[in-house]
Amino acid sequence: MNQLRHNIATMQGYVPGFQPDDIASWIKLNTNENPYPPSPRVKEAIIAELGSEGDLLRTYPSASSQKLRETAAHLYGFDPSWIIMANGSDEVLNNLIRACAGEGEEIGYVHPSYSYYSTLAEIQGARVRTFGLGDDFRIKDFPERYEGKLFFLTTPNSPLGRAFPLSYVEELAQRCTGLLVVDEAYADFCKWNALELVKKYDNVVVTRTLSKSYALAGMRLGLAVARPEIIAALDKIRDHYNLDRLAQVACVAALQDQDYFRESCRKIVETREWFSKELLQIGYDVISSQGNFVFASSPDKNGKRVYDGLYSRKILVRLLSDPLLAHGLRISIGTREEMEKTLSAIKEIG
Amino acid sequence: MNQLRHNIATMQGYVPGFQPDDIASWIKLNTNENPYPPSPRVKEAIIAELGSEGDLLRTYPSASSQKLRETAAHLYGFDPSWIIMANGSDEVLNNLIRACAGEGEEIGYVHPSYSYYSTLAEIQGARVRTFGLGDDFRIKDFPERYEGKLFFLTTPNSPLGRAFPLSYVEELAQRCTGLLVVDEAYADFCKWNALELVKKYDNVVVTRTLSKSYALAGMRLGLAVARPEIIAALDKIRDHYNLDRLAQVACVAALQDQDYFRESCRKIVETREWFSKELLQIGYDVISSQGNFVFASSPDKNGKRVYDGLYSRKILVRLLSDPLLAHGLRISIGTREEMEKTLSAIKEIG
Repeated sequence: MNQLRHNIATMQGYVPGFQPDDIASWIKLNTNENPYPPSPRVKEAIIAELGSEGDLLRTYPSASSQKLRETAAHLYGFDPSWIIMANGSDEVLNNLIRACAGEGEEIGYVHPSYSYYSTLAEIQGARVRTFGLGDDFRIKDFPERYEGKLFFLTTPNSPLGRAFPLSYVEELAQRCTGLLVVDEAYADFCKWNALELVKKYDNVVVTRTLSKSYALAGMRLGLAVARPEIIAALDKIRDHYNLDRLAQVACVAALQDQDYFRESCRKIVETREWFSKELLQIGYDVISSQGNFVFASSPDKNGKRVYDGLYSRKILVRLLSDPLLAHGLRISIGTREEMEKTLSAIKEIG
Repeated sequence: MNQLRHNIATMQGYVPGFQPDDIASWIKLNTNENPYPPSPRVKEAIIAELGSEGDLLRTYPSASSQKLRETAAHLYGFDPSWIIMANGSDEVLNNLIRACAGEGEEIGYVHPSYSYYSTLAEIQGARVRTFGLGDDFRIKDFPERYEGKLFFLTTPNSPLGRAFPLSYVEELAQRCTGLLVVDEAYADFCKWNALELVKKYDNVVVTRTLSKSYALAGMRLGLAVARPEIIAALDKIRDHYNLDRLAQVACVAALQDQDYFRESCRKIVETREWFSKELLQIGYDVISSQGNFVFASSPDKNGKRVYDGLYSRKILVRLLSDPLLAHGLRISIGTREEMEKTLSAIKEIG
């Protein structure tokens, strides 16, 4: 295998959350999917793009995804030159590393958060430095000046669910000499976000996904908001036709249906608050969440035991392999009915 | 802009073929799209996946695209472990470079062919070496042992249309110490292909796209065939959910409808042969093509003049910016009716 780069030959690949084949027979709360369908306008837009015989599919899509950029720009209050669309926010996280960190250069992130940052850095041959969290939910031992090429901050954090206060995100922006990438995959379920910091600090990038709040995990849609120089660099790196025609029309339709989107998020937040309160009442530790999931631990702090009990009842939640997180479970917020069943099961398991 | 890597800050992005907004009012022969729609099964499969309200779109797609791999493997006579699916063959070309060529390491390709190899190498910070073609359609000055990490061979070549004889591809496989990537974007319009060499030589990779012969440019679907060790490396590098749900079902449906596929290719090849003969009869030079396009030059060798004449008649063909190619035009093969109109326009232009 002498044809492969050493870092590629020796690295482990990322293992995404388990997707059962018989998906319909599970209550599936392990990958933070939205329990509600996407806006009905999404299906309409896809059918319209297909036309009478799928004829448009024979032609290339818009390379720039310009209409999507304009729609997102309008929604978030930026000029379209500050927006790039991606085949899932993973694509733009990948390309941010490629834009800024060469072989042997450092990127940093908080552990626990999204371990895929580490995989992406390994692919590049970049070095990875992780920082833990203190009991005050501040990053432990973060340097006064952090000189890594990028620092990824997932907020609201996954799997913990807590969001970093905006004042703290701003402090980090000031302390990073490289880019601060604020990964806001869950920000639509949170009371605040860091978009204003993109305008205020030239090293702040915000990434978003349509997988969770817009219920489009199946369509692979994400985006980044950053100043135009960074967007221009990312445009050079991305595949020139990174989004297919149906993903493009789905994205525009979903972003434009803000009433549906807000109602979907409202229901999830309401269920999250109810479910958290119920778990607390039966003696569980529950971290106050701003995401579409909660991190909760049973009184005996045995995540595996509860996981197995739920699994045997065809309820799938996320047990994380890290010993730091083995006491608890990350449970996505489903419909109220699904969470009632999950709560009953948890009570049964004891 | 000190946050960007030097290679990214200074590189030019790739500029894909022009896509007019008012696409329906053009005869569009500039990006080698298929003039016929994809198999009707594609639309059926997409509608089925959407279900009654697009509900499945809220869930992640298959990370491994396993069903697509199995379908392609069956079609090409390989085990599924020899196949990887990609968001357009561009994704897999990108990831092949990432798998094998580090910063400062060399990749090679034939010029003229697909200049995007060069862009992909620049993103990586790899070095690029190009080789010209002799009048015998062999690569000029190709070393007895080529030690670059990858060599990309587009066959049939674009924009020229000629395919390298299989014996010559095999000779190159023997002379390359790194990977020989045989980019067969147009192989379905050719009488031979290099798939058998993947089994015979451990450094041969074949890439394919569904954009041309399967009329799915709008869905971004490509694949690579290589031995399992290389596929495993590419699996570590790709986005873990690289293909959305609708692209996955579209791919399976298209690959399974071989009768439709063969008839679509047959019509295009028939029209290509007719169009080439007609051009020869009016004094054009036409390179004998094995793709879904021809490279042709007018008696005065002024590509720009003919391009402008066609453009003013709303016929869009490809004029390549390279001085080496300025004498001619790459003209995609449309329907017979489109090519008759194009031929009449060329005769008018003189």
